[in-house]
Amino acid sequence: MSSVFNRSNFPDKELLQAASSFGTPAYLYSQKVLEETASEALRFSAPYGLTVRYAMKALPSAAILRIFTAKGLGIDASSGYEVLRAERAGIPSRNITLTAQELPEFFTELIERGVSFNACSLHQLESFGTHFNGRSVGVRFNPGLGSGHANRVNTGGPASSFGIWHEHVAEVKRLAGKHSLTVERIHSHIGAGTDPEVWVHCARLTLAMAAQFETATTVSLGGGFKVARMPDETPADLRKIGSAVKEEIEKFESSYGRKLHLEIEPGTYLTANAGVVISKIIDISDTGSNGYKFLKVDAGMTEVLRPSLYGAQHPMWSVPLGGSAQGGGDYLVVGHCCESGDILTPAPSNPEGLLPRRFSQPAIGDLLIIGACGAYCAGMPAKNYNSFPEAPELLLESSGGIRMIRKRQTLDQMLQNEQCSPN
Amino acid sequence: MSSVFNRSNFPDKELLQAASSFGTPAYLYSQKVLEETASEALRFSAPYGLTVRYAMKALPSAAILRIFTAKGLGIDASSGYEVLRAERAGIPSRNITLTAQELPEFFTELIERGVSFNACSLHQLESFGTHFNGRSVGVRFNPGLGSGHANRVNTGGPASSFGIWHEHVAEVKRLAGKHSLTVERIHSHIGAGTDPEVWVHCARLTLAMAAQFETATTVSLGGGFKVARMPDETPADLRKIGSAVKEEIEKFESSYGRKLHLEIEPGTYLTANAGVVISKIIDISDTGSNGYKFLKVDAGMTEVLRPSLYGAQHPMWSVPLGGSAQGGGDYLVVGHCCESGDILTPAPSNPEGLLPRRFSQPAIGDLLIIGACGAYCAGMPAKNYNSFPEAPELLLESSGGIRMIRKRQTLDQMLQNEQCSPN
Repeated sequence: MSSVFNRSNFPDKELLQAASSFGTPAYLYSQKVLEETASEALRFSAPYGLTVRYAMKALPSAAILRIFTAKGLGIDASSGYEVLRAERAGIPSRNITLTAQELPEFFTELIERGVSFNACSLHQLESFGTHFNGRSVGVRFNPGLGSGHANRVNTGGPASSFGIWHEHVAEVKRLAGKHSLTVERIHSHIGAGTDPEVWVHCARLTLAMAAQFETATTVSLGGGFKVARMPDETPADLRKIGSAVKEEIEKFESSYGRKLHLEIEPGTYLTANAGVVISKIIDISDTGSNGYKFLKVDAGMTEVLRPSLYGAQHPMWSVPLGGSAQGGGDYLVVGHCCESGDILTPAPSNPEGLLPRRFSQPAIGDLLIIGACGAYCAGMPAKNYNSFPEAPELLLESSGGIRMIRKRQTLDQMLQNEQCSPN
Repeated sequence: MSSVFNRSNFPDKELLQAASSFGTPAYLYSQKVLEETASEALRFSAPYGLTVRYAMKALPSAAILRIFTAKGLGIDASSGYEVLRAERAGIPSRNITLTAQELPEFFTELIERGVSFNACSLHQLESFGTHFNGRSVGVRFNPGLGSGHANRVNTGGPASSFGIWHEHVAEVKRLAGKHSLTVERIHSHIGAGTDPEVWVHCARLTLAMAAQFETATTVSLGGGFKVARMPDETPADLRKIGSAVKEEIEKFESSYGRKLHLEIEPGTYLTANAGVVISKIIDISDTGSNGYKFLKVDAGMTEVLRPSLYGAQHPMWSVPLGGSAQGGGDYLVVGHCCESGDILTPAPSNPEGLLPRRFSQPAIGDLLIIGACGAYCAGMPAKNYNSFPEAPELLLESSGGIRMIRKRQTLDQMLQNEQCSPN
């Protein structure tokens, strides 16, 4: 089950080979795990048809988009730039949906090329209608309830700016009428929670919105499915959630006579456990007998921002390279930035806290593997902080080979846009 | 006094001109403020000589480095890449000090070119000694006490991995003896606190380390000086701190007969209030009468990560562009990323909390200016998240002109390193 991180997908031999061929730090993704999670998502229960869209912001590299497209997934883009990026990767425009906080200035071009659109605010709906009178459109609602491990990954409820507040249905209808728009898809996004009850409750709220739009033929549940990065975490159970959602869609059919097509939009679920960051232990230090012991690595918030941002927990292990081992014990793992928040072992959900991890025989020069780094790592880093170049991305192919899918940034590249003036 | 943010340094006329010439979002820096803060720092009291080094990680663009160098400041680099970057900007190697968590593989080249070095761990000291027997070196100590507005900007104390723990003096001496090194500079870094008492206490601790190294001729107090970004914040008083530190250095002289040269390494102080982000209001929405009102802007954690990371507070104001104004009231300002943590108005020091701000007549299309964005904004963003391109940097020159010092990133540039394989 790919919703639980499995270290055996990243054998020492491949990790050592990747490090020796491409250097550290580097991201390494498993094609096998990516394809397995895509297959699992495609088995989600849907009585009247299913579309799985990959929420590409989780990990937007072209090679990853192509793997998911080959498996039959569509793409959900959260900005106009993501749409352009997917199109450049060869994804057909008609397979892409734009669901964004920021309506790009060039959005009309995207729609004209066949990109589908979820209006995420009344202003977006008005803008769409002004340009595309008589067309079909999706509407993203905030159903008034969210789910997530922290407020900050909660994307529903009154504190969330995502989507049109559910009480504004009359205004949506007025704008749709004004521009002769057909509301064909009702979309919501409820964060990345675990609890199937909450998930189903949110699904019900979204279906209640669909009930109010007789033209709606598709319901899109854009919530995330929690994965287990750490051994003690419980992942969302896709079969359980799917079967409960299926029941709701069937109930909807018996109440309203409409067989709704279902869309889901996983990002984390598809990628989180499919990747690791390969770093190197560059130093080992301590603050005395009453203090802490530290492993310093050549990666950090520049590659994996989630621990600093959320207190997110990632599994870690070292792969020996023959250095002189220190005694085992509890270590804080810190990143290479000159920033006290660059800590890879914060307390859970508390980036201000510290929670040392047990390492048996770490040595300077060992590889330190940061697990479960597929989602929101390469896609959301504090890139170039302390002027560290963007790390390369590698793909462990199903065939067993390791292929570079993004090269390491050079200093020339980092500085090229400063060459804009004589001074 | 540049330690307090002053909106009048960024007049509407210049903001509108910058936005119309270069688009939004964009960083705009005031050369006048940069030069004023440099002058203030150079007036820091030091009885036996002063060197001010700019901690370039705060804002590493070449044009900024050149402004400070022209004012007579040296550079403190927190990574080998920063050294290279400064050298490329034309800064003489001898004006640069490397004080880093990660000793770069190419550090010997840097030292050979004249870069000075602070060993930040026993391992770094050993590595330096192995290559440069008989040389002079600086040693960074963790004096056991830190100062800062949050744990995460505390860079001293037992929870901090920065520098050599003060109890390890004997080991430093052993390594120095082994490699015939002369410890000429004692360095510490104590975070970014306000309290002069804490600052002076840390200075004392650092001088106590200097007392133990008879060869030490320079003491480097690498702490930051707090600035006031918001009207209710109190900045560090440089004169007060300086005069107290001066007294300590004079006391040291009368006790030990050594006239210590003083180095300070401000980053935030020199840049924080010298910059703004110019963004545009792209949407206004709400979550009903019991919910919140939102201003959505075309910038966010991709340009200013500090609010999401620390709950940092930045002043904000809108500059009307003639759109149809909404009623005044309290609004949450949210960024353009599809990420619930992309909030520019968190509660102070609590990125999970929300604190709406009063805006009088905001309209879609207005500029929204995020103030005090000079330090750790362009230098530490969640760059390219949601595939948004890196924003340009502009300099409001002393002469009154606006000069682009870094161009907006293109999509081609963002994707260029993916062009590494046939697939």
